[in-house]
Amino acid sequence: MTYCVGMVLEKGLVLMSDTRTNSGVDNISVFRKMNTWTVPGERIISIMTAGNLATTQSVISQLEERTKAPEDRQNGLLELPTMFQVAVEIGKLLRDTIEKTQQANGARGKGRFTASIILAGQIEGMEPRLFMIYPEGNFIEASFDTPFFQIGETKYGRPIILRGYDRTMSFEDATKLLMVSFDSTLKANLSVGMPLDLMVIERDSFAPTHEQRVEHDDPYFDAISARWGDALRSAFHSLPDYSFEKST
Amino acid sequence: MTYCVGMVLEKGLVLMSDTRTNSGVDNISVFRKMNTWTVPGERIISIMTAGNLATTQSVISQLEERTKAPEDRQNGLLELPTMFQVAVEIGKLLRDTIEKTQQANGARGKGRFTASIILAGQIEGMEPRLFMIYPEGNFIEASFDTPFFQIGETKYGRPIILRGYDRTMSFEDATKLLMVSFDSTLKANLSVGMPLDLMVIERDSFAPTHEQRVEHDDPYFDAISARWGDALRSAFHSLPDYSFEKST
Repeated sequence: MTYCVGMVLEKGLVLMSDTRTNSGVDNISVFRKMNTWTVPGERIISIMTAGNLATTQSVISQLEERTKAPEDRQNGLLELPTMFQVAVEIGKLLRDTIEKTQQANGARGKGRFTASIILAGQIEGMEPRLFMIYPEGNFIEASFDTPFFQIGETKYGRPIILRGYDRTMSFEDATKLLMVSFDSTLKANLSVGMPLDLMVIERDSFAPTHEQRVEHDDPYFDAISARWGDALRSAFHSLPDYSFEKST
Repeated sequence: MTYCVGMVLEKGLVLMSDTRTNSGVDNISVFRKMNTWTVPGERIISIMTAGNLATTQSVISQLEERTKAPEDRQNGLLELPTMFQVAVEIGKLLRDTIEKTQQANGARGKGRFTASIILAGQIEGMEPRLFMIYPEGNFIEASFDTPFFQIGETKYGRPIILRGYDRTMSFEDATKLLMVSFDSTLKANLSVGMPLDLMVIERDSFAPTHEQRVEHDDPYFDAISARWGDALRSAFHSLPDYSFEKST
């Protein structure tokens, strides 16, 4: 499976993704699921992918080729005027790629080749934007009420984000929050795995402000993982005690 | 959907279930998912059900009839000598009920009528036991390493149980833990809903030690729900801070 989260803060965007892909439990690999393109000083566009790896790699390849071969650049991510149009373009590529594979495989492959994408970025003169793109090619944008998107194995790590997220939080706190959310997910689903990719994009920087690959033996992640259990238990014990008497 | 949890403690068994059933989001009802039978001083048997309501109600009806009509009692829950045999009997009923409905509906109904059951109880002279019964009629038993079972919408509420569970905990603490787990689940999935049913069965009591229906306006549940957010945020802030400098 996969776990990716994208967040909008007042200060900018924070993205985190795992790197495990699996076909069954006996065939696992490490693949980067976060891909970023920049035009220094003008735009930064990053996408995270979940779903069928052949589909998402094909989408990335098509995007990458466009950034590389000048004669194909007219619809490239680096030239589209708005993030909305970037989302439209990626959605179209995603839907077409899935449809092509489905058709080639007939009913046999129905539903097997789907994928979802989180798109984040900013183009000069406009706000940082965050989108969730569906296999059907359509998409939604993050809003004040729903300021983050998750794809893949979203459930285990969701309650802490719902409780801990604050639009005004620092990048450091957002990173800590994501590490806790990923820790809960890693503990519960074997098909989400280390290393993790982290990227912070400060508003109006049009470049990655901070990037890190969080490896298996990362001392900070290990500390969070070890101490979150104790912190949760303390939080739990700080709640009022239940009493059999009062409620019977 | 549904959320039910059964736990084995040193002191006995703790069960909690929600009561929401839905067919789509515009057709919701309240149904009790926890059913208990006792022979005072000799045995207590409780089951919680998730899945197709017609299937689980049919299983319960068949079980209830057996406890009521003397001529059918030879395989009844109240006369089987061990919890293992009770699990076998319920598993058989569950599988047969699902199969009958599937067959009557042909391929159209495939997979639509499944259900799962958590079985908990104790018979005099034996240990309290906890089982998870699958739609196929087979089952697993809780062990020292896996001392609780969840059915239905299990993911949102799982991390806190994994972190908070302790075999030696009091019934009061276990109840508090389940309330936190249910609160996270209720917040995330509309198809899990109040009121909740709670039952505590002390070892060798062969009767419910404590039963409660936790209603919408339950002051204790409201306090847990309101304060858990703050407690989680405090726990989160007690963790070491991430620093961009140290890791780049």
